Formats: sequence, C-alpha cells, structure tokens
Amino acid sequence: MSAHKYAIGVDFGTESGRAVLVATRTGEEIASSVYPYQNGVIDRALPLENDTVELDPEWALQDPEDYIRTLQRTIPAVLKKAGVKAANVIGIGIDFTACTMLPTQNNGTPLCMVPEFRRNPHAWVKLWKHHAAQPEADIINTAARERNENWLDRYGGKISSEWFFSKAFQILDEAPEIYAAADRLIEAADWVIWQLTGQEKRNSCTAGYKAMWSKREGYPPNDYFASLDPRLKNVIDSKMSRNIYPIGDKAGELTAQAAQWTGLQEGTAVAIANVDAHVSVPAASVTETGRMVMIMGTSICHMLLGEEERNVEGMCGVVEDGIIPGLFGYEAGQSGVGDIFAWFINNCIPEEYHQKAQQRSLGIHQLLEEKAVRQKPGAHGLLALDWWNGNRSVLVDVDLSGLLIGATLRTKPEDIYRALIESTAYGTRVIIEAFEKNGVNVNELVACGGLPEKNKMLMQIYADVTGRDFKVSASQQTPALGSAMFGAVAAGRQAGGYESIFDAAKHMARLKNEVYRPNPACQKIYDQLYAEYLRLYDYFGRGGNTVMKTLKRIRDEAQ
Amino acid sequence: MSAHKYAIGVDFGTESGRAVLVATRTGEEIASSVYPYQNGVIDRALPLENDTVELDPEWALQDPEDYIRTLQRTIPAVLKKAGVKAANVIGIGIDFTACTMLPTQNNGTPLCMVPEFRRNPHAWVKLWKHHAAQPEADIINTAARERNENWLDRYGGKISSEWFFSKAFQILDEAPEIYAAADRLIEAADWVIWQLTGQEKRNSCTAGYKAMWSKREGYPPNDYFASLDPRLKNVIDSKMSRNIYPIGDKAGELTAQAAQWTGLQEGTAVAIANVDAHVSVPAASVTETGRMVMIMGTSICHMLLGEEERNVEGMCGVVEDGIIPGLFGYEAGQSGVGDIFAWFINNCIPEEYHQKAQQRSLGIHQLLEEKAVRQKPGAHGLLALDWWNGNRSVLVDVDLSGLLIGATLRTKPEDIYRALIESTAYGTRVIIEAFEKNGVNVNELVACGGLPEKNKMLMQIYADVTGRDFKVSASQQTPALGSAMFGAVAAGRQAGGYESIFDAAKHMARLKNEVYRPNPACQKIYDQLYAEYLRLYDYFGRGGNTVMKTLKRIRDEAQ
Repeated sequence: MSAHKYAIGVDFGTESGRAVLVATRTGEEIASSVYPYQNGVIDRALPLENDTVELDPEWALQDPEDYIRTLQRTIPAVLKKAGVKAANVIGIGIDFTACTMLPTQNNGTPLCMVPEFRRNPHAWVKLWKHHAAQPEADIINTAARERNENWLDRYGGKISSEWFFSKAFQILDEAPEIYAAADRLIEAADWVIWQLTGQEKRNSCTAGYKAMWSKREGYPPNDYFASLDPRLKNVIDSKMSRNIYPIGDKAGELTAQAAQWTGLQEGTAVAIANVDAHVSVPAASVTETGRMVMIMGTSICHMLLGEEERNVEGMCGVVEDGIIPGLFGYEAGQSGVGDIFAWFINNCIPEEYHQKAQQRSLGIHQLLEEKAVRQKPGAHGLLALDWWNGNRSVLVDVDLSGLLIGATLRTKPEDIYRALIESTAYGTRVIIEAFEKNGVNVNELVACGGLPEKNKMLMQIYADVTGRDFKVSASQQTPALGSAMFGAVAAGRQAGGYESIFDAAKHMARLKNEVYRPNPACQKIYDQLYAEYLRLYDYFGRGGNTVMKTLKRIRDEAQ
Repeated sequence: MSAHKYAIGVDFGTESGRAVLVATRTGEEIASSVYPYQNGVIDRALPLENDTVELDPEWALQDPEDYIRTLQRTIPAVLKKAGVKAANVIGIGIDFTACTMLPTQNNGTPLCMVPEFRRNPHAWVKLWKHHAAQPEADIINTAARERNENWLDRYGGKISSEWFFSKAFQILDEAPEIYAAADRLIEAADWVIWQLTGQEKRNSCTAGYKAMWSKREGYPPNDYFASLDPRLKNVIDSKMSRNIYPIGDKAGELTAQAAQWTGLQEGTAVAIANVDAHVSVPAASVTETGRMVMIMGTSICHMLLGEEERNVEGMCGVVEDGIIPGLFGYEAGQSGVGDIFAWFINNCIPEEYHQKAQQRSLGIHQLLEEKAVRQKPGAHGLLALDWWNGNRSVLVDVDLSGLLIGATLRTKPEDIYRALIESTAYGTRVIIEAFEKNGVNVNELVACGGLPEKNKMLMQIYADVTGRDFKVSASQQTPALGSAMFGAVAAGRQAGGYESIFDAAKHMARLKNEVYRPNPACQKIYDQLYAEYLRLYDYFGRGGNTVMKTLKRIRDEAQ
C-alpha cells in the first residue's frame, strides 16, 4: 500500500456541507472545508428571484444546487490546503441527512431546476425535517396495520412522516402534476452519486431505513401501494428502482464533468452513498456486534450491529447491509437530548449565573457542570422524564412531554441540569435493555458527535447509569471520516485503499484514549433511581395515565 | 357611640411588630407603625454579650424583650402620628404568630431573662417555625394513634412539630432543668396580655389550634401525657391552665406599667389574645359560615366557620370559639404558594427577562404576568403539583415534592409561572371540596395578605379554578385591624366600642369593590385540567407511587 494516498469524504448536513481529506494509511485528517449552503434550510419562502412563494409552517426544503456547490467549493479547497495532488486521491465517499429526497427528470435534472416547475414547492428537495407529510404517514401506517404488513415490525411498528413514501405520497396528494412529471423520486444522497458518476445507483442504507426495503423481501408489494392510492401502485418500478447496492460497494467513477467541479481526476472511485449517522459507525471503529455507537447532539442516534434480524421494541429500523455489509444494522433514537439542555439554558438560568460565568470567562454549561459534578447521584432529589421532544425509542410517541419530579424550595438550577442529563442517560438505558431483551447484546458504548466533547460529566453519568464502558471517537468530523473510509474501500487495495470497510476501520478509525468507566458506588444509586424512572416511564408512556396527551389536546384546543 | 373613639391593634409577626390605630366607628386606619425586632429571628446564635451559644439548624427563637419594645415604640408612635389623645383610645387587641411559646417564672419573668438560664437556648421563646421538636412530635402522634385519642381527628390526624406540646416536650427532653424551672409554659400571645394586664389569661384560639384543647373536652387526659413521659403527666395543671377564655372576651385592663410603656391610659380595655391568621377573618368582614378567608402570602391559611364540628380530611384543626365566638373555626393550609413563585423567580428566570423588565421599569412578576395573562387556560400545555414545600391540607405530608409535567422545547418561563399559580389554585380547590364533602359549605372566597395586591391574574385564576367569587379585604394590614376590632369589643359599646365582634365587623371591616368572578369558559377548561391534577394528586399523594419519598430518602442518604 502506498504511503501517500488519500480519500475524501463529503458530509452533506442540514445547514452546510463539509469535505475532509484523509490519509488512507493512517486515517489522519489532513484538511477540511465547510460550505454553508447558500439557501440553507428553506422553510419560509422559495429562494426565487422576483417572485414570492411562501411555505406552510411544517415545511423544510433544500436546493440541490447547494449540493453541487458544496462539491465545487470544498473539494478543491481541501486539495489546496493539504497540498495534495488529485492523482493521489484514490476515492471519494459521501454521506447525507435522510430521508432527504427530490423529484427529477430521467436525465437527473431536479424538477425545481425546470423553469415550469420552479415555483412549485413540491419540485424542490424535501429535507429530512420536512414535517408536512403527517396525513400521508397516517394513511401509510393505518393501511400497513390493517393489511398486517410484516415489514412494519422492522420499523418498531411505525413509519415516520419524515420517511420516503410519506414525502412521495404528499407530492402525489398535493401536486399530482409534479408527481406525474417526476420520472424519478430519489434520495438526495443517491442523486449526488448520480451527479458524480453519471449512474443512478441507490444505496441499501436509505432504501432500508427510509423506504421500507429489505435485502430479502425487497419493497412492500405493489398492491400495498395501490391500497394507499391507485396512482401509487407502480411507484417503485416507474419512479424508483429495485436495484439496491449495499453499503461498501463502489458506485462508479468520477465523470469528466464531476472531475472538473472537484479538481479530482476523472475516473476516481466513488462509493455508494451513505447516511451521516450510519457512516459514523465504522468511523467510530465499530464493525462488529456488541458495541453501540451513539451519535450525540441535539438528539441521539443509537447504532448497533447484529448477526440476525430481531424485532426490538421501538426501533427506528433494522436493515441488513444497512450499516456494515453482511450484518444487520439496528437504529434507535432519543428525540431530545442536547436540545433539552439548550432549552434549559435558554429558559431557566438566572441572571446571577450568567454574571458569574461571565466574570470567570466560563460558558454557562461549564459553570453548571462545575456546580453539578461534585454532587453524589441522587443528592438533588430530582427525577425527570426526558420527553421534551417526545419519545422516539422505545415508545415511538411524539405526543409525550417532559416531566420533572422532586422539586423543593431548595432546588437549584444545577440540580435540574444534572437531573435532565441523567434522564437522557436513563432513556439510553431503556434502549439498551430493549436490545438485550431481544438478544442483541450491548457490551460497550462509543460516542461521537458534539456533546461528548463538551461535557465530561455527562459522559460519566452515562457510564454510571448504563453500567458500561463509554469510549469516544477520536474524530470530530466522524461522518466525513466514515465517508472517506468508504471512498478508500471503493478505490480498493490495489489503488492504495482497502478491500473492505473492516480493513479500512482497522487502519483509519480511532478512539480517544479516555474511557469513562462505571463507578460501582454510583451505579448502585442509579439502579435505584432508574427503577423509579422506569415506573414513571411505563405509567406515563404506556397508557397508565394519558395526562400528557390530554394536556396537548387541551393546548391545541386553546390555540 | 362617640364619633371620635379609637382602638389599637398590635400584630406581632415573625420579623417585626406593627401597631395600627383605627377609628372604631368607621374602621378607618388612621396611623400605623412598625418595629423591626432588634434580635429578629434567632436561628444561628443567642444574642448574648461577651458569649457565644450557637444553635442547631432547625432552631428558631425570639427574644421576649422585642415584644415589650414593640409596645414601647409603636403605640406611642401611632398616637403621635394620628394626633390622638390616649383618652380617646378605648381598647387594645393583639395577635401573634403561633405556636410561639416560652417558659416563665410564676411572676411572668421569661426564663431567658433570668441570668442563670440566659445561656440555655431552651429558656428563650420558641418561634412558630422552630422545627427541632420533630422527634417529640413523632412520639406525640404515635402515642395518640395507639391510644385512639379521639381529639386527633380534630387535627387531620396529625400533630405538628411546630405545636405547643412538641415544643414543651422538647424542653423536657433536652433541658429538664429548664422544664423544672418553668413555673409556666405559655403562648407568647398570652404572655404579652399578661404583661399588659397583669393577668395570665389564655386564649381559646392558640389553646384549641396548637395545644389540643377543646371547649367541650378540655385538654387530652393526664394519663395520655404520662404515656409520653411520666414527668409530663401534670403539665396542664402545674405549668398551664384549664381556664381558657374565648376570643372576643376582655382580658383585663392596662396596668400602670403598661400604660407607661405605651402612653395609653391605665385601665384601657385589653382583649384576649388572638392569632394573626384567625384575627384576620372578622377583619376581612367574615363572621358567618360559607365564606372562606384565605390569608395569602408565602403560604395560604384557609379559615372557615361552621355551625357544627365535622371531621374534614387533612384540616389543621377545628376549634369551637377558635375564630369567632359561638362558631366552629376551621383551619386548613397550603404550605407553599408565594414561596414557590419566589423560588421560580430566583432560580428559573433567564437574563433576557430581567433585562426586559429593567428596561421597562417593571417588576419581574409584572413582566411574567403580562406575558402569561393573555394565555387561554391550558394553552401552555403544563400541569404542576404544588408540593415544593410539601402538602399541608389535605394530605398532611411534608415529604411530598413538586412536579411539573407537559414541558416541551417550546415551553417558556411565563408558561411555567402560570402553571405554578394554577397548581396552587387547584390545591385550594381540593381543600374546598374536602370541606364541602363533609358538609362545611364554601360559597365565596375572601382574600387578604400580600399576594392579592400583587397579582390580579392569580386572583382571576383562583376564581376560575374554584368557580367561586373571590373578594379582597380592603385593609393591607388585616391582622392588626382585626386586633383593633377585638380591642373595640373588649372596650364595649358604652365606651364607644362594640358589643360583639359581629357588630364590630359590620362597621369596621371592609372589602374592596373589585370582585373576581369565575369566567364560565375558563372554568370549563379548568375543570378538565383539575381532573388531571386530582388524578396526579391521588397517585403521588396517596401511595399509588411513592417516588417522591424514595427520592428524598436517596437524597438524604447521599448527603
């Protein structure tokens, strides 16, 4: 293997795209570059010149030209920063938010770039957090339950309004002319691969997690789609594809045009597209069963590998080849974590604390951590249910809400802060136990994302609450590193890359030296508190007391 | 009746004493004067010269000389301010915090003023909020339950550590030499009357509410006291008195010395002592059944009159002649109200709100009220259990704690503020329903105290939640006015006063013109929310889920 070969990973996020240039031998991240999307998240009005088309509240779109601009800006930038010749870049991989999808013509042109459709919001990219397709998701779920569709179990019994067919169905419902004009309906991730290679090759990750596809059973049957709406009957064969390529495959090679965009050589290997959370797993060194990767930020994605397909309560999905080829990739999630802490910081911190933090040049999180870290578990007397943003796993219920119990006149902000962090750790423990109950073991945790960097107390609490070692990915741009690893695999060993993602992970992925190990004394107290958490979890989450839903109903009626 | 006669009421509070001079014909408050106690609440060390005696954490004492100084400072001050001659002041009444008690010699000298006992904390006045007698209260309760003492029902089944025999028993336990030296154990209220008149005359209010006395049954039997400790057997006959004088009686007349202290005439009529909350009832114009007086401040005292003795769940007490002669006075309470709002203000208001309030020269309560008052009931989606300071009525459980449910990432501070206010209104509704369930009607609410002045939104919420008209006492110093009214009754009609407290209330007590009336639309929504409150109340308060107690146990073990 050559000592001086490189791969590039491009991570397409919600607000920006980021390229990282990585040495294939060592995994060293040589250079990175970020492009903030010109049109960002389009959630108020379409970015039209001389025209105004406003969007409804739950909408969230993107502009596909921002993806091309990301390639045009960031890849030349990392080549330049690193002083690396294009000839030494052997492969490129990308990862994306998902489901982020768009309608295109047969030649790949997004409908929003066709003048006659440009004013129609349905012609644009529907971003993952576009939430306007709930009515269609409801029909999808009702029909699946009525027909006893067995694929529903792979998704914890519920399809999200964020997913592929909810969005596709919304186009048909609200803009049948766009649906008719769409030769293709495609994940943005696969669309970018198409732009890079000239070939429409769809990946197993988004197909599996977002479009109800499985390696063994394929898509749901046509008559299921017909039951939703007769016009949907042939959606797969007419506008999508049954050829799904596993993660780790090579998609093709850079076209002349893509080479011109990026400054890379025509013919450079391009990997099958991937999803940001999923591509982080091998980048966090995990290619085997038993080690759960947690992408920790505003929310947590829990990724885990298994050798068999098991039904686990409240999972977001289980997909063969969905994360690592040859294994079943499980995904679970907590819908509110960092954003609960941010809510608390924005709404509940007294002036005095801000002044203290300022005087000492500390961040407010730092000040709170300093005050809370010395507490023994349970000393604040509080317990919370971490449902400020609903509960994804294992209850799959967006109508649940947050609870805090145990407050007294002596309760301080740092007490609540610690209790909120603990509540999210209990939420993770529920997920771990749901996996283990169904025979999918979790022996160790590996973190990546923004939170682990910022809050050591949080990491220790997670270790203590779950009773498991908690390690941290060395990279601060884990998804892009993962994409670069897949790029190196697409290039292959001969070219200076790797034969498989397993090999790539061995050489390119790395953990920090620090390990958060459970403290047995703390664990013992947390076991008691967790028992109380579970009891409240079941009481409020499983129908013992539906007050949270009643409060939301009364709230909605009042508004 | 002369047009220019006056009475003086003196209200002995926790931090200060206040005198108000009132025109007997109209109830007009002509002048007032406050004396902040020199030694305030003594909770760290005794106020000794050249010596240090520190107190344990739960202790709270007062200095009886502060009471005398209050008389010496405030009464001459109001005479002077008002330009009223002593000859035209026909009577004086006092009210006190309770149970606030002290040991004295036979001549009335407090033991703390006797040099040999001055260094012993047990020789001083034990203030109502002295909480160090819990072990004795526990014994008192256990013994009463074991012996099926029927008086226990009059106190909601539980005697407080704040009450008379808990405190007396603590003296015996911890300082038998003080107990032995104490010829008398007496409420501070009665001690002040003794100082004013030269006669030890004990009032029916403190005897009934704080010392388990009743008009029909007297005190608990000697053998009950003996079961606590043989040395307590004759506590009533040896250190107290079985002669209890009903509220509304005349205690006696000012002695020459008291006349000298106060600048009043020797022989001025003095009323039997009273308690601050209880004396507020006639001052808030209530001398009949069916109208509940709520003294609203850091906590709420609920006072209600009935024609019969009924057992009402979780009452603080029911005492014949305890509030108004000839009627049964019921007392209930919420242990946290204004202090929950203060906790919230001190701990949970973001910097931005303080800045906005400052810019607009508003108080923070005003700013929050402005933001919250426009909300429709239920619009914030929150519900709270108002147990930050435990629950007095009807659960009588200090180990309960606060709960907030329904929080989302969109919850704002004003939402929580409003939910906390509402939760205290629900708490009052539970108390009202407990009364009515037992045949004691509550047709209307009358507020006095600090809160009603400050927060109109709160008043409207209470009206809407309880479905009852809510009126407000006109006086901002209701207890002192009530004491002056009893002073006028002690003086009698001949002297320019009144024959009874009923007559005095007709002429001297007044309500504000404003009435908060329930809004039927709001009431309907609050009925739904209250049903949810009740369900949580019962679940967490009556043993369905003991998590609040478990959290406090774990907290205490951690500390």
